Order: sequence, then structure tokens, then C-alpha cells
Amino acid sequence: MSLMAKRWEELADIKRVLARRDWFPGTSGNLAIKIDDEPISFLVTASGKDKTKETNEDFLLVDSKGQPVGETHLKPSAETLLHVEIFNKTNAGCSLHVHTVDNNVISELYGDKGSITFKGQEIIKAYGLWDEDAEFTIPIIYNHAHIPTLAADFAKFVKADAGAILIRNHGITAWGRDALEAKKYLEASEFLFSYHLKLLSFKHVMV
Amino acid sequence: MSLMAKRWEELADIKRVLARRDWFPGTSGNLAIKIDDEPISFLVTASGKDKTKETNEDFLLVDSKGQPVGETHLKPSAETLLHVEIFNKTNAGCSLHVHTVDNNVISELYGDKGSITFKGQEIIKAYGLWDEDAEFTIPIIYNHAHIPTLAADFAKFVKADAGAILIRNHGITAWGRDALEAKKYLEASEFLFSYHLKLLSFKHVMV
Amino acid sequence: MSLMAKRWEELADIKRVLARRDWFPGTSGNLAIKIDDEPISFLVTASGKDKTKETNEDFLLVDSKGQPVGETHLKPSAETLLHVEIFNKTNAGCSLHVHTVDNNVISELYGDKGSITFKGQEIIKAYGLWDEDAEFTIPIIYNHAHIPTLAADFAKFVKADAGAILIRNHGITAWGRDALEAKKYLEASEFLFSYHLKLLSFKHVMV
Amino acid sequence: MSLMAKRWEELADIKRVLARRDWFPGTSGNLAIKIDDEPISFLVTASGKDKTKETNEDFLLVDSKGQPVGETHLKPSAETLLHVEIFNKTNAGCSLHVHTVDNNVISELYGDKGSITFKGQEIIKAYGLWDEDAEFTIPIIYNHAHIPTLAADFAKFVKADAGAILIRNHGITAWGRDALEAKKYLEASEFLFSYHLKLLSFKHVMV
Repeated sequence: MSLMAKRWEELADIKRVLARRDWFPGTSGNLAIKIDDEPISFLVTASGKDKTKETNEDFLLVDSKGQPVGETHLKPSAETLLHVEIFNKTNAGCSLHVHTVDNNVISELYGDKGSITFKGQEIIKAYGLWDEDAEFTIPIIYNHAHIPTLAADFAKFVKADAGAILIRNHGITAWGRDALEAKKYLEASEFLFSYHLKLLSFKHVMV
Repeated sequence: MSLMAKRWEELADIKRVLARRDWFPGTSGNLAIKIDDEPISFLVTASGKDKTKETNEDFLLVDSKGQPVGETHLKPSAETLLHVEIFNKTNAGCSLHVHTVDNNVISELYGDKGSITFKGQEIIKAYGLWDEDAEFTIPIIYNHAHIPTLAADFAKFVKADAGAILIRNHGITAWGRDALEAKKYLEASEFLFSYHLKLLSFKHVMV
Repeated sequence: MSLMAKRWEELADIKRVLARRDWFPGTSGNLAIKIDDEPISFLVTASGKDKTKETNEDFLLVDSKGQPVGETHLKPSAETLLHVEIFNKTNAGCSLHVHTVDNNVISELYGDKGSITFKGQEIIKAYGLWDEDAEFTIPIIYNHAHIPTLAADFAKFVKADAGAILIRNHGITAWGRDALEAKKYLEASEFLFSYHLKLLSFKHVMV
Repeated sequence: MSLMAKRWEELADIKRVLARRDWFPGTSGNLAIKIDDEPISFLVTASGKDKTKETNEDFLLVDSKGQPVGETHLKPSAETLLHVEIFNKTNAGCSLHVHTVDNNVISELYGDKGSITFKGQEIIKAYGLWDEDAEFTIPIIYNHAHIPTLAADFAKFVKADAGAILIRNHGITAWGRDALEAKKYLEASEFLFSYHLKLLSFKHVMV
């Protein structure tokens, strides 16, 4: 199997698992996996597809600017520029963007603060942090409708080979050195969002 | 594959995905997809079936009045008249009606106001609205037990080729130019309902 | 296919769908489908099995007293006596018992009142009630540990060929003339429980 | 089929069912099943794998100290020491550890009390307790980052061949004489956690 076919299958597998969780409502969400470093190219989800389906047009190859490589009638996802920032600024190999109810609610509740910090939760180890007092902070940025402006704002928080950023009332982007790490960051973040909201809902009951 | 077989498969695919989400409780819900324009005919779910099952009697062909085309022992869904309004008044190609807990709760909480309006959410782009301040309003109508009365009330809000209407304590009907657009409207609406309810539940906690 | 094989497959199909929803936590729940009327015999789930699995020992045939017909190492479900009441007192053909979080919460919140009544919800039509003001009442009985006592209490509310009874902090039993109707009663009830709880949770927010 | 292959399949089956419920977020969770008694050996999940996938490297054989038996490039799960305590101190045959939102919330809400006790719920019978007034207590221990310290603390509550322990802001470990009993303890506990939280959320509404 070629590298391209291998990466395609890795991304298709993530798409399948996340689609089963209904994490792509209304054709939202987009996924990317790096193919080459010099020059950078990556597979990204084609725009406007129903992600509960699997076809050989689910992904297309784009270059370091997010432009399609070679002739194709497929359009890269509108938010490909966010993945561009990640692959250009770090050694990340995979980047995942999804909308969930809980990540949207967290982004709105903590949007004015500009970030949310988690601490004292075992699942924080999924971020590679093994210290008992380890903290993990997820920035929350404004959801600029103009994608290049959004990408520029987003890029300010892309500082490591793995990470996660919330876009307010929009969704999360999580990335990692490979598909497994990106998925791990995504799932740990969603778990923390859901846990945080559920615990918060008992604040007035317990006091 | 004939046009009929193609449309049947599109509708069956939507039915399969929505059934997995348990969006057809108690045999509720009904789905329709247009086959012909002049005169109008469409496939609609047969009445009273368990939609977790797939058979060659899941759908039947009806005309512009919702009457079966040709001999059949199948009965069209009781609410076929709502789909009739959509196909007769617009260029919609597909129309979906489902009951979910969240769309019922929204319809009751905002029923007296007669509608609910969403704004400032990324998923609003699923309605084809790309402006940062775009709003999307979903009317909420009374659930008349008499279906022709319900259909007449419903028809007042059927003004575009794609849209969504809530029926109070009943469910949602979402439609679009084709199956993908109808499903996109449906999923975006359900996402917004769930998001809105979850955020609302934190109002008293955060203040 | 023999009648026995046909009924087995109907019950296995319901078991498969409900297991996917995780409605059999901790091997709880039991299902029954009638095979014969004179004398009464029915298939019932064998005790203590993991219902996410499918084997040819999932069900066994029992008589009108709930005793196994013929030699078998299988034990009928401990609550077979409840199904016995239903098949002996009515023309029901299928009876389903499941534990869900929402039916347990409803049974506790309304247990002292002894019942919960639903009105003004479209899904009430699943109970065969088409009137706009139709009401459907589900009795809530005490969960006697002694099964014959529980069955005697339960029997008082078994009055029609289709119905539903809640056992407090235990679960629901829903039945109907055939498998489809029993499942319809079950799903409509669970939908109403979830709807009722979600709406109730907004009472203090909206006032 | 050899005993090893039989046990492997039992554990793989549990992994498949729990993965479908998304009970292994961010590669968390680990599962163990005993192979031999004298000396003790057991299969345990390999570290860092995505548990939605099935491979022949999902589990590896370890000895009574949790060290791999024979040459392998696989690493046993970091928390293998907890399973070691269970297999060494009791006749348990299977031990399951998962992170869920609800078990984390319960562990935090009742962490200061050091345990949570359930009573008056039918599902308590899943613990083999058939008395009407039966109680089941789940201890909640501190989540020491140092695994040997955690294991020593954990061991204090490992007193029976089947049981369950919560680790605060971490997850639950449930075990039993065989795979079915361990899964039954796990599912009953999760059901009770979810039930308890949902009922608690209505406290302020009903009073």
C-alpha cells in the first residue's frame, strides 16, 4: 500500500468513527492528514459532502497553501486554511475539526475569558502530561466569518506539534503528530467539555 | 439504475442513518423524495412501519394530492399532505419529518412566541447563510389533529425551496432542493435545538 | 419458516435493536412473544444472558404458568410471571420489559402519585389514541422483591390488549397485540419520559 | 479453541461493545482477563491503542506482577498493577477499567465522602444482592499519579471476588468471577451513576 493509500485509510477510519458519533452535523467538520513535508501536501475532506457516506471522493490532495494538487472537480473544505497553518507551523501530521453541542456550549460560556483550563483530571494524560498538577489550556477565539482573518487569529495559538483550539460557537480543531494523537487530543477535549458541563450543572444543587 | 431506484436508495439511506439515531420513535416520522415534476409524484414512507427495518415496501409512489399511484396495499403516511404542500409550492426535491425529544421541548418552550430565531452560530451556514450576522427563524405552528387543517396552516410558512417548520409537541419538517440539502437543514436545526437547550440550562448557574 | 421460527426472529430483532440502545444494562430486561393460545405458550428470554449477544439459547418456550416446555438447561427470566399475567388476561402477543435511566427517574419522581399521565403530545397517537385531547396514563407500582406479589399487583393494571406499566425504581413493561405494537408502546413511553424530564428541567429557568 | 483464544475472544467482545459506547475516550481504559491460576497470568490491553480498532496486538499476556510473559514489543497498560491486585487477592477472572463522564462526575461529587451507596434500586440485583433493602457501596479513592501508590490504596478495597471501585476524577474498575460478571458489575454501576445524577438534577425542581 502506498503512503497516500495508507494515510487515506487512516483518515477514512477516523471519519467513520466520528460519523457514527454524529460529530459532523449538517455536513460540518473537516479532516486533514499530511502526505509530504517538502513541499507540504495533505489530504483534506472535500467540501459539502455527507460524512456518513464513504466514497473515493471524500478527500483530495492540496498543497501548502491549501490549493488542489492536479486537476479535480472537488473543492477543498472552506476551512482548509486552518489546517494549512497547522502543517506549516508545526510537525503535526493530522488535524481534525468538528462541531459538537458540548464544544459549542463551552466555547460560549468561556468565550469572554478567551480560554478554558483543565486540571486534576486523569484524562489530561492523553495530552502527554503525566504530572499530578498538570494543566491543559484550550484557547477560545472569535469566529471571524472571513476565513483568512480567522486563520490568522487561529495561527497565533498554533505553537506545538499537538494541541487544540476552540472557535466560539463554531467548533474545535485538534491536531497531533499522527492520526492517533490528533484523535486522542480531540477525544480528551470532548470528554473534558462534557465532564465540565455536567459537573457545573450540579453546582447549585450541592451548595 | 432508473431515476426511481436512485431516489429510493437516497431516501433509504437517509432513513437508515436517522433510524440509527432513534429519530423514529414509535413508528413516528415520515420521509418524502420527489420523482417527477409534471405532474408531480413522489415517494413517501408507508404508514405504520418500524423504520429500523429495510424492506421493499418502505416507500410508495403518490401523486400531487398524496394519493397512491397505481394499485398497492400500502397506505401513505398520515402526514403525506404536508409533503404535498412542499412539493406543490416550491422546487424542493426532498422533505423529512421527525420527532426528537429536543425538537419537541423547543417547540413547547417557544410555542407561544410562534417561532425561534438562531443567530451567531457557525452551523447557520448549513442553511446557505454565510453572513456573520445571519439569522435563521423556524416557525412553530399549532398541532391540529385534523391533518388538512394542519397542512393549510403549515403551507403558510412554506415559502422557499429549502426550510424548516416546527409543529408544537409534534416534530420538525425540513426540506431542501435535494436529499442532501433536506438532511443538512434537518441536522443543522437539531444541532441548534440541542445547543440552545444546553446553553439555556446554564443560565441560572452562570449569572 | 415455522411459526416458532418466525416469532423467534421477531423477538430477536427487537432484542438486537434495544441492545444497540443499551436498554439491557447488567443483563437486565426480558422479552416475551406468544406462540400458542390454547394452551398458552410463549418464548421468553433465558435468565442471566448478555443481551448484546445472539445465540440459539437466547429464548426458551414456557407454558401458561411460565414453566419451561420440555427438557432444557435454560432458566426462564425471573420476571416471567409478569408476562404470564399479560398473556393470560389479554390478547397481547408480545411483552417487553426494560430498565432505562429515564423510566427509573420518572418512576421515582411520580411513584408517590401512583401514575403519570401524558396529554397534548403527538406521539400519544402511537397508543392508538387519535383525539386531540387524548390522555394516556401509565400506572407506577411498588417494586416488591417477592415476584408473585409483584405479579399480583401488576395484574391489577393489565386490562387491555396493549398497555404499559412502570415498576418503581425498576423499569417498564409494555405490551401489544403483536411485536410491532409492543415496541411502539415501549418507544412512545420512553420518548414521553425523556421529553417530560427535559421539559421539567427548564421549569425554573423559564419562569 | 484453546483457553487462551477463548479468553481473548471474550475480552475482545467486551472491548467491542464498550468501544461502541465510546467508553474509551482518548485511548483511556484497560481490560484484563485471567488465563491461569498457578502461577497467575492474565491478558491485558496493550498501552496506547485506539480501542475502536481490532488487531491481534490488542492484548498481551502478563504474569502475577504485571510483567510481559515472553518476548514482545507491546507494553502492558500503565494501570496493569490494579488488575494485579485483583487477580492476586481474589478469585476474580476478569477486571474492567473505563472512564465515563458520569463516573467521573459521581467520583467528584462524592469524593470527599469517600464512597457512594446505592439502595432501593432493582438493578442492585446485578450485584447478586436480592434482598429488598440491599445496599451496595462503591468506594472512591484518591487518584495518585504514582501508580504503585494508587495500587496500594486500591488494594485496601479489593475484598471480594466481584466488586467496583471509583478513582476520583479518573474512572471505575469493576471485576467479577468471569467476563460476564465483571461486565454486569460495570454496567449496573454506570446505570446507577447516571440514574443518581439525573434524579439529583430534579431535586431543586420538585421541592
